Amino acid sequence: MSKEEISDWFKSLQDSICEEVREWEGKDIFTQDLWFREGGGGGRSRAIQGEIIEKGGVNYSAVHGEMPSKIAHAIGLEPNEFYATGVSIVMHPVNPYVPIIHMNVRYFETDKGDWWFGGGIDLTPHYINVDEANVFHQKLSDVCQVFDGKTKGEKYAEYKQWADNYFYLKHRKETRGVGGIFFDRLNEKSFGAQNKCFQFVQSVGQAFVPIYKELVLNNKDRSYSAEAKEWQYLRRSRYVEFNLVWDRGTKFGLDTDGRTESILMSMPPMAKWEYNHIPEPGSEEAKTIGYLKKGIDWLNYK
Amino acid sequence: MSKEEISDWFKSLQDSICEEVREWEGKDIFTQDLWFREGGGGGRSRAIQGEIIEKGGVNYSAVHGEMPSKIAHAIGLEPNEFYATGVSIVMHPVNPYVPIIHMNVRYFETDKGDWWFGGGIDLTPHYINVDEANVFHQKLSDVCQVFDGKTKGEKYAEYKQWADNYFYLKHRKETRGVGGIFFDRLNEKSFGAQNKCFQFVQSVGQAFVPIYKELVLNNKDRSYSAEAKEWQYLRRSRYVEFNLVWDRGTKFGLDTDGRTESILMSMPPMAKWEYNHIPEPGSEEAKTIGYLKKGIDWLNYK
Repeated sequence: MSKEEISDWFKSLQDSICEEVREWEGKDIFTQDLWFREGGGGGRSRAIQGEIIEKGGVNYSAVHGEMPSKIAHAIGLEPNEFYATGVSIVMHPVNPYVPIIHMNVRYFETDKGDWWFGGGIDLTPHYINVDEANVFHQKLSDVCQVFDGKTKGEKYAEYKQWADNYFYLKHRKETRGVGGIFFDRLNEKSFGAQNKCFQFVQSVGQAFVPIYKELVLNNKDRSYSAEAKEWQYLRRSRYVEFNLVWDRGTKFGLDTDGRTESILMSMPPMAKWEYNHIPEPGSEEAKTIGYLKKGIDWLNYK
Repeated sequence: MSKEEISDWFKSLQDSICEEVREWEGKDIFTQDLWFREGGGGGRSRAIQGEIIEKGGVNYSAVHGEMPSKIAHAIGLEPNEFYATGVSIVMHPVNPYVPIIHMNVRYFETDKGDWWFGGGIDLTPHYINVDEANVFHQKLSDVCQVFDGKTKGEKYAEYKQWADNYFYLKHRKETRGVGGIFFDRLNEKSFGAQNKCFQFVQSVGQAFVPIYKELVLNNKDRSYSAEAKEWQYLRRSRYVEFNLVWDRGTKFGLDTDGRTESILMSMPPMAKWEYNHIPEPGSEEAKTIGYLKKGIDWLNYK
């Protein structure tokens, strides 16, 4: 696969996901911005403002150029000409019973012959529903299963643990949500060949719609109290904390003069901080906090 | 001065500032938390939830213990026993015409004989009022003037520039607000003696009340539109971005297992992100954005 073929597929993934979200909303809720990067390449940012998805984005980009030696060394490479392409999605729903979702698929290569894929999907429910978390992880496990070697379940287990460790608010000792899968630097060592890696990444990208559609359509019309909306604001502020303090992609983008508005499309529409907020013991909110731990085996949790 | 005398003075500064804020509010709006640090020392956090100050805190702490060699090297010291004490304040007012304020005074020493003071005051108006910015900087200049050497205005100019450079959102190419003064590692080289440095830091601490009182009392009862409140939410999200992405104190605290709720008392009560929000040309909001630049000579700006 050439980098252009990979990039074209990502672009078509952006289109098909946007098409689907438009259908849920019943109208066009995207604002598209085309942008160009001084050093080479650019992107197609699509911001959402809808009645189901309060704020979010489905962003595609393909950038290339000379990699500053500082950055090259930081990621363990010699200075090079690089090419990076991918799709990034974050959706903050209106209804607090619809979870926040994040998906990313990406490809990177250099003129020195290095290449890898990365990405993942993870879910951040404002209220954790054990059955939904179970189904979510089941679907991710199914995607991974196809690409497993002799030891079944190995890839899911590895990428699930990776997500647990990555989407973690160290300063809160909380996971961001119920995790999902996360992977980086997938190359020949991971799947034997570039096209196998790409197939896996395509499967992850294609899993987004069936996974989120069910969560959206099942929950978007549930009635909720003002307290549930308040709780959503508080959980969103944790999302902000993760993305601005710990997320390597966000930090890297802001540090290297990326397109700020595209990087920060992950920020929620409205978020709230309250000093030392502790939910009432036994409440749904307290139960959710109780689930924000690494290592929960959601596939078998009952 | 011993470290205990300095720390005691900081504690009394916390008391006197809280006393004053209570007076504006007409009632007690503080929640006090005493906390203890595993390695040594602790603090007295006072969170505000009031009718004038929507959210904020006046925090005092004095911590000590062994400094991890990683941190020692990062700040250019040999491993040591350290002592660090200070007062930190952030206030997010209800009324969008009252600016957000931040003040910090701190002292640090090691058993190897190193010591320094640091701190500053800076102002983040949701709507920049040139006259108020002028008066604010005039008062800071007056504080610095007393401690100036032969070249009058030198210290203010130095610390003002330091604040411009420090309170800067690189990814937005915006200053956080109208700046103020910022200084770090003040030691014998700065003022000739420890007690001279301390006198300066005391003057900065004592400047907080007269500076902010006027801004609060003049503006707290001004009427404002729903649009102005919206604008306040948007400006607060920039405050979040600065503190979580760029503020060294916040990052250091979160990275080294500090008390999260005390560190994040700087977060606003409610903040909002909107994709690519650009105020209408010529509006008050657009004028404010126009002032968010380094190097404005607020003392002489007309």
